[in-house]
Amino acid sequence: MFQSFDQATTPEHGPMRLAQLRAEMKRDGIDGFIIPRSDKYQGEYVAPHDERLAWLTGFTGSAGFCIALHSEAGVFIDGRYRVQVKAQVASCFTPVHWPETTPADWLKSTLGTGVVGIDPWLHTIGEIETLKKALASSGITLKFCDNLVDRIWLDQPAPPMGKIAAYPLEFAGVSYQEKCEKVAAELRQNNQEAAIITLPDSLCWLLNVRGGDVAHNPVAHGFVVIDKNAHVKLFAHAEKLDQLGDHFANDVAFFDPEDLEPELTKISGMISVDGDSLPVAIEQMLTKAGKAYKIAQDPCALPKARKNPVEIEKARESHLRDASVMCEFLAWVDAQPYGSLTEIDVAKQLETMRRATGLLIDISFDSIVGSGPNAALPHYRVDTESNRTVNEGEVLLVDSGGQYLDGTTDITRTIAIGAQPDEVKRAFTRVLKGMIAISRLKFPKGIAGCDLDAFARVALWSAGQDFNHGTGHGVGHYLSVHEGPQRLSRISKVPFEQGMFLSNEPGFYKEGHFGIRTENLIIVQPAELGPDANLGAIFEFETLTYVPIDRRMIIREMLNSDELTWLNAYHKTCRDKMNTRLSKETALWLDQATQPM
Amino acid sequence: MFQSFDQATTPEHGPMRLAQLRAEMKRDGIDGFIIPRSDKYQGEYVAPHDERLAWLTGFTGSAGFCIALHSEAGVFIDGRYRVQVKAQVASCFTPVHWPETTPADWLKSTLGTGVVGIDPWLHTIGEIETLKKALASSGITLKFCDNLVDRIWLDQPAPPMGKIAAYPLEFAGVSYQEKCEKVAAELRQNNQEAAIITLPDSLCWLLNVRGGDVAHNPVAHGFVVIDKNAHVKLFAHAEKLDQLGDHFANDVAFFDPEDLEPELTKISGMISVDGDSLPVAIEQMLTKAGKAYKIAQDPCALPKARKNPVEIEKARESHLRDASVMCEFLAWVDAQPYGSLTEIDVAKQLETMRRATGLLIDISFDSIVGSGPNAALPHYRVDTESNRTVNEGEVLLVDSGGQYLDGTTDITRTIAIGAQPDEVKRAFTRVLKGMIAISRLKFPKGIAGCDLDAFARVALWSAGQDFNHGTGHGVGHYLSVHEGPQRLSRISKVPFEQGMFLSNEPGFYKEGHFGIRTENLIIVQPAELGPDANLGAIFEFETLTYVPIDRRMIIREMLNSDELTWLNAYHKTCRDKMNTRLSKETALWLDQATQPM
Repeated sequence: MFQSFDQATTPEHGPMRLAQLRAEMKRDGIDGFIIPRSDKYQGEYVAPHDERLAWLTGFTGSAGFCIALHSEAGVFIDGRYRVQVKAQVASCFTPVHWPETTPADWLKSTLGTGVVGIDPWLHTIGEIETLKKALASSGITLKFCDNLVDRIWLDQPAPPMGKIAAYPLEFAGVSYQEKCEKVAAELRQNNQEAAIITLPDSLCWLLNVRGGDVAHNPVAHGFVVIDKNAHVKLFAHAEKLDQLGDHFANDVAFFDPEDLEPELTKISGMISVDGDSLPVAIEQMLTKAGKAYKIAQDPCALPKARKNPVEIEKARESHLRDASVMCEFLAWVDAQPYGSLTEIDVAKQLETMRRATGLLIDISFDSIVGSGPNAALPHYRVDTESNRTVNEGEVLLVDSGGQYLDGTTDITRTIAIGAQPDEVKRAFTRVLKGMIAISRLKFPKGIAGCDLDAFARVALWSAGQDFNHGTGHGVGHYLSVHEGPQRLSRISKVPFEQGMFLSNEPGFYKEGHFGIRTENLIIVQPAELGPDANLGAIFEFETLTYVPIDRRMIIREMLNSDELTWLNAYHKTCRDKMNTRLSKETALWLDQATQPM
Repeated sequence: MFQSFDQATTPEHGPMRLAQLRAEMKRDGIDGFIIPRSDKYQGEYVAPHDERLAWLTGFTGSAGFCIALHSEAGVFIDGRYRVQVKAQVASCFTPVHWPETTPADWLKSTLGTGVVGIDPWLHTIGEIETLKKALASSGITLKFCDNLVDRIWLDQPAPPMGKIAAYPLEFAGVSYQEKCEKVAAELRQNNQEAAIITLPDSLCWLLNVRGGDVAHNPVAHGFVVIDKNAHVKLFAHAEKLDQLGDHFANDVAFFDPEDLEPELTKISGMISVDGDSLPVAIEQMLTKAGKAYKIAQDPCALPKARKNPVEIEKARESHLRDASVMCEFLAWVDAQPYGSLTEIDVAKQLETMRRATGLLIDISFDSIVGSGPNAALPHYRVDTESNRTVNEGEVLLVDSGGQYLDGTTDITRTIAIGAQPDEVKRAFTRVLKGMIAISRLKFPKGIAGCDLDAFARVALWSAGQDFNHGTGHGVGHYLSVHEGPQRLSRISKVPFEQGMFLSNEPGFYKEGHFGIRTENLIIVQPAELGPDANLGAIFEFETLTYVPIDRRMIIREMLNSDELTWLNAYHKTCRDKMNTRLSKETALWLDQATQPM
């Protein structure tokens, strides 16, 4: 199994480790130390080597950080993790609601004055700039130092040494030379000499390689410097490179990560760096060497987000394959007697079915399989402690995906286990109305997530309901399942462009009772301009995911005529695209599951 | 008639006046001078005394400015006025597309280096700060000076001396003392000593007075200083005050506007000023006197926007009265033979009918009455030159409103004059779908115009269409028909609050052919929370305007079941609320016009 169901941490080690950390702080004469959940590369997943936050505090969420002071230690967590943190950390740690309370505010009120240590490799220049600004005219200063957790973590795993392998052109669609030339052309246009790229998925996209440094996302850790003539220097440990074969021509030169500083000093001219991913440690190298640099967006971010025709064609196929697995899985769930399955059984079955395609490289994240009240935790990860039987009368929420060479999938379906209360059906139907509203949108150039997010919510809003997460995220191509810069979110101002992938996943969560989420992946595509058009172009969303939505929880009378038309057409397409890919039994199940309403 | 149909300006005077202005610039040794369309009070309307931009250039739009240099003179106009400006200004003026081209960019590329004169009374501190920032590290500096246009405008009308009169409590709902006490409490809470208020509608709202200094908006020009103990100093010419009677108790003291500077020097403590309305000239007074000030929102802005229960009750009645006029008017239009009316005939008839209520104080803006291609100009104002016959087969767009003691109205209806092409009907129906979408919204606390604006557009977007203005604006209570701070616009981040008034007016404009707009006024009101609610509160929009929407241009098949339900319910409400208020003939007309579809 790619997914483990062990409890990753327990709260009990926290107090001793915090005491040791405080001893190190004392030794260094500092009053605080910040432990983020990040590595040098700022990806969403970190290797065991970089699980400092979980090791110290017990908290295993995908976002958050700890600020340890001598008197207090705050664990900063967002809305998704307020329940989880209480179970995971010992009482020597104080959960802090973030971003409502900022680190600067907390430091000012808790520490007052003093020196706070920072590992410059684990924080971006943007992050530190914000923190410094917020602490200006306070008595608190930041001091860069080595990592105090690494000093006391005696059995810290080694940094990952995943092999870097070529990603074939047949799947990538565009050669790395062409990508590098485009980035170089942009550098020339901006009068820049070179760019430093540290985001793992940008590195992989640019050079058409994939790696194995973190779980579930086939990314490689390393640094790239690309200059305006498209010459590339790749900084990665030699032992990671021995399977690359003849992927690269002479235009890529290899260096050890230790060579980054001396190589940077050789650049003359303006260097482009990304404020959201460049570690302060590299900025310090640039400053020390007197190099000029300009904060700009990672030059790979937008071209990576705008998938090319080959990536789109491959994504369609990988999504149909994954949909066939999901249909087999949903039919299997329906065939099991009530009360015969636990959440772990369900997760294992789903992974087994994905493996049976023979093409699964990994799951794209730990499957979220929540039944009854566990479904109300949007980021629930079942373990042996939390595992429970899926009972009759409950919903079962399954959010999962696969990493295939030809694409990354991500789908959520909520399944009725037996008859459901009307309250659940009403919420399910409202979530569906939101999902349909996003699916049906057409919009002009320049429109961003902030303009459209509300469409996923109005049906819920009308009933006094809402959900506490964004409506959707970008998705990589056999890369990270969460990929920027575009998002379907109230705060995202990145305009949608042709070829961008997004998830469309409204939900509703009633704490302690039930949770609902329905998620398809969609692509931004040009739409036909009607005869009345006064705009030059418009976009629409192409749906990638074709898996039935549980009709047993849809209240037909709550759908208007447009929504009903969409739903019936969607289910007809599921039937048309899927029925030749399924077992006989599942094809029969599909026929039932996609009957028009 | 409140509305005049004369051409206000002609282009021919421009060249000579520009030459005279340049002579004054030379005399003062400056290289440029900025002529905004504003007065000291930054209201939307200006008195004839302040029509400097129109006098100099011929351009009469409600927004824009001129920058005169020795070599060139740019007239900066936004999207609404690109056609109009060409007809109004002589060739010595160059239209500049604004805000695409900023004044700073234009100055840098056209002037290069030099000194630009500014009348510090006509520009806000926010505006000048932005301009200064944009000109930093250029060779261009700003110099404050007296107004060069006033020097050469020999027959410049005198500043307005409209009488200031009490606005009765029966209409205002809350006493001026209570309002002042609330503002004072906010000052105390923010540790501020006093606030300076210069926005005319803020002054009128705060003190429960109305004035007569500009057309169509019953505002009074003057300045107010209110301190943390709710003591008020009103700076206005004595001759404007002789009708106030015993409206004010001892807590309001009167001063001549010339006394503002000496009175400001008496304040000790922090002074709150509004960055978007305070003229630089007053900031200069504060700086000269060494006073501390803080830029904050006008303390009247939000309380003024949140209408009180009396204002809302009065608004309902004034809108029903105005709706009865609109019904009589629409029935009258329908009864006229094709080709028998000009746009001016229509505008005069509508104003005559509003006057016939016996309660009209003024129209709330110059009625927009556009037929055929003129309807495609969103801000069209008919004059004797542009006037045309309303022909069979054309649409007639009428955007108008009344100022009544009990409320300010604003309504747009587009009327079919005879049979319409399908293209017009399709556009009309899409605009209606947008208007219905906004009307039906419910939403939580914290939601602003930027979150909701797209709902008015998606039906148009789907056909490759859009309109080039915001969806709605705030509206005053027997005050300015355009009132901030909330807006239904992609760029407005002001959260909606209970009691805020908005217009809901999507449109579509095909240049040279036709234009459509449908506008109701709406109020933000608390909505009932359903049994499934997980939010603490939600809002909905109460509709104020009940006037039939022209069924002859609605394509029934383009409406979904929700939209059809809304439309039929709306028309039924129109019938129920209106039929006792109408003439017999119009009641019959209404019955036809509101039949369910």
